[in-house]
Amino acid sequence: MATTHHFLAETAHVDDAAVHALPGSRKIYAEGSREDIRVPFREISLSPTKTSGTDEENPPLLVYDTSGPYTDPDADIDLRKGLPELRRRWIDERDDTEWLDGPTSEYGRRRANDPMLAPLRFDLTRTPRRAKSGRNVTQLHYARQGIITPEMEFIAIRENQRRQALGSDEVERILGHQHAGQGFGAKLPEEITPEFVRREVAEGRAIIPNNINHPETEPMIIGRNFLVKINGNLGNSAVTSSIEEEVDKMTWGIRWGADTIMDLSTGQNIHETREWIIRNSPVPIGTVPIYQALEKVNGVAEDLTWEVFRDTLIEQAEQGVDYFTIHAGVRLPFVPLSADRVTGIVSRGGSIMAKWCLFHHEESFLYTHFEDICEIMKAYDVAFSLGDGLRPGSVADANDEAQMAELRTLGELTKVAWKHDVQVMIEGPGHVPMHLVKENMDKQLEYCDEAPFYTLGPLVTDIAPGYDHITSGIGAAMIGWYGCAMLCYVTPKEHLGLPNKDDVKTGIITYKIAAHAADLAKGHPAAQRRDNALSKARFEFRWEDQFNLGLDPDTARAYHDETLPKDSAKVAHFCSMCGPKFCSMKISHEVRDYAREKGLTGDEEAIKKGMEEQAEKFRQQGAELYKEV
Amino acid sequence: MATTHHFLAETAHVDDAAVHALPGSRKIYAEGSREDIRVPFREISLSPTKTSGTDEENPPLLVYDTSGPYTDPDADIDLRKGLPELRRRWIDERDDTEWLDGPTSEYGRRRANDPMLAPLRFDLTRTPRRAKSGRNVTQLHYARQGIITPEMEFIAIRENQRRQALGSDEVERILGHQHAGQGFGAKLPEEITPEFVRREVAEGRAIIPNNINHPETEPMIIGRNFLVKINGNLGNSAVTSSIEEEVDKMTWGIRWGADTIMDLSTGQNIHETREWIIRNSPVPIGTVPIYQALEKVNGVAEDLTWEVFRDTLIEQAEQGVDYFTIHAGVRLPFVPLSADRVTGIVSRGGSIMAKWCLFHHEESFLYTHFEDICEIMKAYDVAFSLGDGLRPGSVADANDEAQMAELRTLGELTKVAWKHDVQVMIEGPGHVPMHLVKENMDKQLEYCDEAPFYTLGPLVTDIAPGYDHITSGIGAAMIGWYGCAMLCYVTPKEHLGLPNKDDVKTGIITYKIAAHAADLAKGHPAAQRRDNALSKARFEFRWEDQFNLGLDPDTARAYHDETLPKDSAKVAHFCSMCGPKFCSMKISHEVRDYAREKGLTGDEEAIKKGMEEQAEKFRQQGAELYKEV
Repeated sequence: MATTHHFLAETAHVDDAAVHALPGSRKIYAEGSREDIRVPFREISLSPTKTSGTDEENPPLLVYDTSGPYTDPDADIDLRKGLPELRRRWIDERDDTEWLDGPTSEYGRRRANDPMLAPLRFDLTRTPRRAKSGRNVTQLHYARQGIITPEMEFIAIRENQRRQALGSDEVERILGHQHAGQGFGAKLPEEITPEFVRREVAEGRAIIPNNINHPETEPMIIGRNFLVKINGNLGNSAVTSSIEEEVDKMTWGIRWGADTIMDLSTGQNIHETREWIIRNSPVPIGTVPIYQALEKVNGVAEDLTWEVFRDTLIEQAEQGVDYFTIHAGVRLPFVPLSADRVTGIVSRGGSIMAKWCLFHHEESFLYTHFEDICEIMKAYDVAFSLGDGLRPGSVADANDEAQMAELRTLGELTKVAWKHDVQVMIEGPGHVPMHLVKENMDKQLEYCDEAPFYTLGPLVTDIAPGYDHITSGIGAAMIGWYGCAMLCYVTPKEHLGLPNKDDVKTGIITYKIAAHAADLAKGHPAAQRRDNALSKARFEFRWEDQFNLGLDPDTARAYHDETLPKDSAKVAHFCSMCGPKFCSMKISHEVRDYAREKGLTGDEEAIKKGMEEQAEKFRQQGAELYKEV
Repeated sequence: MATTHHFLAETAHVDDAAVHALPGSRKIYAEGSREDIRVPFREISLSPTKTSGTDEENPPLLVYDTSGPYTDPDADIDLRKGLPELRRRWIDERDDTEWLDGPTSEYGRRRANDPMLAPLRFDLTRTPRRAKSGRNVTQLHYARQGIITPEMEFIAIRENQRRQALGSDEVERILGHQHAGQGFGAKLPEEITPEFVRREVAEGRAIIPNNINHPETEPMIIGRNFLVKINGNLGNSAVTSSIEEEVDKMTWGIRWGADTIMDLSTGQNIHETREWIIRNSPVPIGTVPIYQALEKVNGVAEDLTWEVFRDTLIEQAEQGVDYFTIHAGVRLPFVPLSADRVTGIVSRGGSIMAKWCLFHHEESFLYTHFEDICEIMKAYDVAFSLGDGLRPGSVADANDEAQMAELRTLGELTKVAWKHDVQVMIEGPGHVPMHLVKENMDKQLEYCDEAPFYTLGPLVTDIAPGYDHITSGIGAAMIGWYGCAMLCYVTPKEHLGLPNKDDVKTGIITYKIAAHAADLAKGHPAAQRRDNALSKARFEFRWEDQFNLGLDPDTARAYHDETLPKDSAKVAHFCSMCGPKFCSMKISHEVRDYAREKGLTGDEEAIKKGMEEQAEKFRQQGAELYKEV
């Protein structure tokens, strides 16, 4: 067994680029009802607003932080040790799990005992856990029992983002502005309580992907009555990339905002790569187990068996994978429905299963063994991400019968999973023109009883390879607004090649834009404050604050430097777009100050009077818009 | 008067990057009812589909082409001579214009006679034209007389894109698929006739920006019952850039798809820069005349007068500017309405006029002299782009009373312009969260009697400086779908600095995506063919065709090369995302071929039978998904 490239466990080290705090930012923790509920936030410090009198303070802004301990200067980061087990005590306290002697999967044992793998193996000092016999350890199960877990309380604090420092009344008037949203049936409460979290999980409208074997996670939730989340994919292929690169992509992705990471590796050492990623990931990890199962049968789809697949599920569940994409909706009778499509079946998992069904002329074993799968899921609390193996791969194929037949089946399977108290989300397309996006959301809610939707884009046109982060970002923002709970990113390399670190970042930032735009449109009560704070900084020429409040301070600063590189330009009351001679924003301040002073409200007489006085004042002062730098 | 940088008229030369044909493409012309109506298209050649029998031809795809003669290898490009006067004869034939002795504006004469400017002056060998006394030379005027101009016929052919080579029935089944659109009141005919163009112009729902002093243009139309158009901005500022750079941005912008270009220069030698751009631009040029007027009064807004502004309009109209942004809706009583905004007034033109109104305590001279402005516009056929000086500069300020008060005024002014048979479009925001975008479109249609809408973005969130092409591309796609006729691009440098050539390209491609996504959603009958052709190429592993059919073949190819650089990879039946071992698309071909052969339609019995046979066939053949390369 060859080691990939030059990766060696003993010299593994964190990517330097991932461990600095973001500019102007520091990690803070909000404590919950017990001292071990410590919810991380990023606090962005802001400079005061310069006024003619006393400077006006701008309160720091708290933002949701997916980056984990990596951006905490007090954390001791060592990839070889993995992250601290944040949830260990919570899992222990529930006393419904048992420690196994070691991996119970045949493959897991084989890998653990293979001396050739030692140089690249993560050195895990504990064994896997599993539910005690007859117990169900899913968050859905607890929720339905009326139990509020520490995970749920953690999430409530995290989603609220309410422990804000407040500014003066005038500052709060600006920062607190929030348009009424349009939620299409989403119900976003003013305050997220732990009980609200519990209820949403209990009713299947939200999931908390939290495998008991991934205690390193900072709990998060996926549901349409919460902040819209995004997923970043990574993974090697037979053609390219090493373990180290994939771990770097993970730490890089969460730095910029990935709420979950899917490891889609299909190349060498999938098992070991996954171990490194999970042990060092503070966000939930998803996988598509059929990819690895296929590797185990040497890539011959028809050689797949339920036994190989089952062993793979256990192998991965015992490593700590938090959700599994399972294409159980690709049923034998649906395969011919894809025959007249422009792009046939474009899902890897979907086509693997289609080939298996064709070859054996049998119903998919994922479908026939679905309840067996549920038994495994609930023993580790792995959530389903029911895969859309028949998703459209082109605008032409959008919303066709193959897609809809599968979606109805996923709805049927959702009810089966819920019967077992197993958490479920549903995957969605793909390629869909704008006017057909909403139908996807509406049908999903209808067929799947409001289980969370998790979509790839959708791409709203096929004609821009190289820019599919954008073609899909448009569709993602829209479907997020309509009710999609999590958006799977697409990078600029989609359809062309495997993403590198730059592509990962571009994909993540694009999807943070889409998710945030959706939160704004839905009227999430915590959403608009950041826009307001950034716009206020922009209007007041607080350049550094403008950069730091943005999703990517580094790029914003670099772009500004390109045309006005001097430090003095960072306090200039202009930018290179209009130059120092004239800037539209300054007069607005004069107008605003004057109107406020005079109490002008739009009343005709008052305005007339005010304008007369203002005109006189302007003339007297020789007021200028220029500002020397 | 200093010459900027090293630009010299005598050595001006075209940017090499702008004059090569795009890969796999050639320029073709479709002739109209007379030999001098020659409508340019780009024809993309495609390779045949490999089959087990005879290869199947794929017909070339025609696409709308904004790049002008630059991509025609037969054209003789010399920036110093400018482009051929395509429309000269058409203007001559109407016999309603007269040649002037020279510029009639005071400023135009002064610049023409300044010997210091000789080294950078474009050497124009003709004088300006103007309508004969009492005549009106607008396309709207002709349309209302029932006259179909050659410009209108040119546009009908251009918009139709119907002179396609056709493929076999099976190929056309794929290429011809078109989802029914959702037009929100847009009426897109199956075929665009010259009479349809005339009627849309006559009713004010579309404009043809075509100054009689810009005969170099290839006519185009802006209206919601046509393809959605995009505009690219360029222009120097006092801080940066030269004439040469701006001309290069123009030729670069149209290469990638800019339908019009706005020259927003505020730096040195605005007049001369504009002349170089217009003489070499095959697309309409727009400007904001108040910028230059302000320069003429040394940047002191309150020193602006109607006389200076009027002279500027004539100066620019006689150079050939096709549309003027005029902020005549920023009225004195509206200025205080912006007082409580988060970002006040963010339009340069708007703030100039607000300052003027405040200082003089007078109604805006743009508003009081609006009919005088119409008199100038109709003598040259300059179209109004009624500026949104009070557009929101932040999500918080979206759809507020300041914005709506101005929009109602623009509606009022539209009727005044139409009384003079002057063409009008209306500018729109800005920064608007997704759920408030449609209200902008609906109110604009209502207040402005369906005059075309032309929006900047809108940006759907404020939190991503450095990525505002994306934040705005989302809003642009949506408002284009809702009925916006032209989308003004935003580059990654928005809010941060002046765009360079790379930024221009990124902005243009992003907006081509938005416009095309809108065309698809509206159901434009010529839109989906390109998506279908590209998706077919993708499904058939015709990599070169996939690149060439995209909006940016160069970037797509470069990305593919990054992970699989060898030429052989360009014919490989896999990509680096899944590697050679397994690819989802191949099985789809097998499934499709089989189902078609057996005539399977979804009927249960037939499927069952088919599946049995297929399973047997698979087993017999040992069919593999692998493909050796």
